[in-house]
Amino acid sequence: LDRSDIEVPKDFELADLGPGLPRIFGPVYRHARDPRLAFLVCDHHLNPVNVCHGGILATFADMQIAVLKPGFGGGRGHYPTINLSVDYLAPAPLGCWVEAEVALIKKTGRLVFTQALLTVNGGVVARSTAIYRNVTKSGDP
Amino acid sequence: LDRSDIEVPKDFELADLGPGLPRIFGPVYRHARDPRLAFLVCDHHLNPVNVCHGGILATFADMQIAVLKPGFGGGRGHYPTINLSVDYLAPAPLGCWVEAEVALIKKTGRLVFTQALLTVNGGVVARSTAIYRNVTKSGDP
Amino acid sequence: LDRSDIEVPKDFELADLGPGLPRIFGPVYRHARDPRLAFLVCDHHLNPVNVCHGGILATFADMQIAVLKPGFGGGRGHYPTINLSVDYLAPAPLGCWVEAEVALIKKTGRLVFTQALLTVNGGVVARSTAIYRNVTKSGDP
Amino acid sequence: LDRSDIEVPKDFELADLGPGLPRIFGPVYRHARDPRLAFLVCDHHLNPVNVCHGGILATFADMQIAVLKPGFGGGRGHYPTINLSVDYLAPAPLGCWVEAEVALIKKTGRLVFTQALLTVNGGVVARSTAIYRNVTKSGDP
Repeated sequence: LDRSDIEVPKDFELADLGPGLPRIFGPVYRHARDPRLAFLVCDHHLNPVNVCHGGILATFADMQIAVLKPGFGGGRGHYPTINLSVDYLAPAPLGCWVEAEVALIKKTGRLVFTQALLTVNGGVVARSTAIYRNVTKSGDP
Repeated sequence: LDRSDIEVPKDFELADLGPGLPRIFGPVYRHARDPRLAFLVCDHHLNPVNVCHGGILATFADMQIAVLKPGFGGGRGHYPTINLSVDYLAPAPLGCWVEAEVALIKKTGRLVFTQALLTVNGGVVARSTAIYRNVTKSGDP
Repeated sequence: LDRSDIEVPKDFELADLGPGLPRIFGPVYRHARDPRLAFLVCDHHLNPVNVCHGGILATFADMQIAVLKPGFGGGRGHYPTINLSVDYLAPAPLGCWVEAEVALIKKTGRLVFTQALLTVNGGVVARSTAIYRNVTKSGDP
Repeated sequence: LDRSDIEVPKDFELADLGPGLPRIFGPVYRHARDPRLAFLVCDHHLNPVNVCHGGILATFADMQIAVLKPGFGGGRGHYPTINLSVDYLAPAPLGCWVEAEVALIKKTGRLVFTQALLTVNGGVVARSTAIYRNVTKSGDP
């Protein structure tokens, strides 16, 4: 299974995450209106027991800051991660479509607090909280 | 910069992490005697501002359970991650050798608690705690 | 300010949390229908800079498992905490009514995952995630 | 069992934690030379199953910032907690002497990262990580 096999659900569009890691992570999708991200679990995401590697779900969870970036990858803000915490509730097997529903809890001048539920077919596979440093320019809200 | 550029320090040897994600993560090294893991930050590990992606450090941090796996990848035990928490203290730039010094805090019949300090040239770039489920067979230590 | 000064909002009733710590923590309230807990910040909850001590908010956050205990304190289930994580977003000053809105994310035969938003007048002061061990008897759901 | 029953080990001295919560938490001790804190589990620290309440251990864990405060309570620095994470490994029963061995991982101009192992007779009962905001005046180290 690889990225050519992905049938993208209606309302999801390809997100531009830039060069570097995103190039090997594979395509990530964003919902057209809601703060939701998604990806399809492919062969290169698997761990030795053939379900999605915890590091891949953590990497995907770290993308939750994207809710603050218009078109993400294209946003002007820069938000280095301070803390990322992920709890794993169920395995995400090969071929499943993993969605992250992201909530912006608070944005101050210094910090951004977000959290996300990662689901497969409506069942939670992981949940995550994150704290980012807000280093946006002063003109930014 | 890619994996062909890696000069592996004395006492570190290639770790066999199996197929799937490890194949795209790139080589990970283990110390011959100490509970230490390492990797070299390459182009495919970078985020859009050209330092190691937080997800990559989280993925590397999730490997801390390897201290319980002889030769790791080869261990018989299976330890699904329950919680992975990572705090990011400093950026890890392209070309740096990131080491994780892992401590096994406690192993019970049900759970394994580990923690790790990730350093570059002796300076801490991240710290992590993890909880794994112990699903080893009863004959296992 | 002490516990005799508390005007309890409509729909909240005193929760019975049993002896020990609850006796010094002071009264905790539960919503009649929703998974919501509350307490009033009194003098004995303050830190040296006169806002609610982080440890008090953490203690209150640890009570989120109460959503699984009918009448709580009275529930038959026993759920030792495995992980409690709290992020502090804003100070909770003397005299404020702190509510926790709790969500049960998942309950398996082994573990319970909950999370909570702690608010004062609708503004988030803290958020928390928790993992508990499920040691209820087998007859329990 | 109450605070009058405490036999304080050699090298530990009473810590002055100021008014408010510390007055009901009960006495906390600090090692004369090492970054170690301690308290004795008394009746008012117990949960309904008669071991130390998770919130009490979390409150104690939140005191780990004390390593940055000379004589603590007396330090000039102010360090509001941003994140406190506690993992519970074993129960701490009535009458046990709980020590926290604290490590300062990094202090920047903005943030302080610490972690602590909580032990009883050398066995780990909890471990904790914390992130504090550094709001000390510029003259402070």
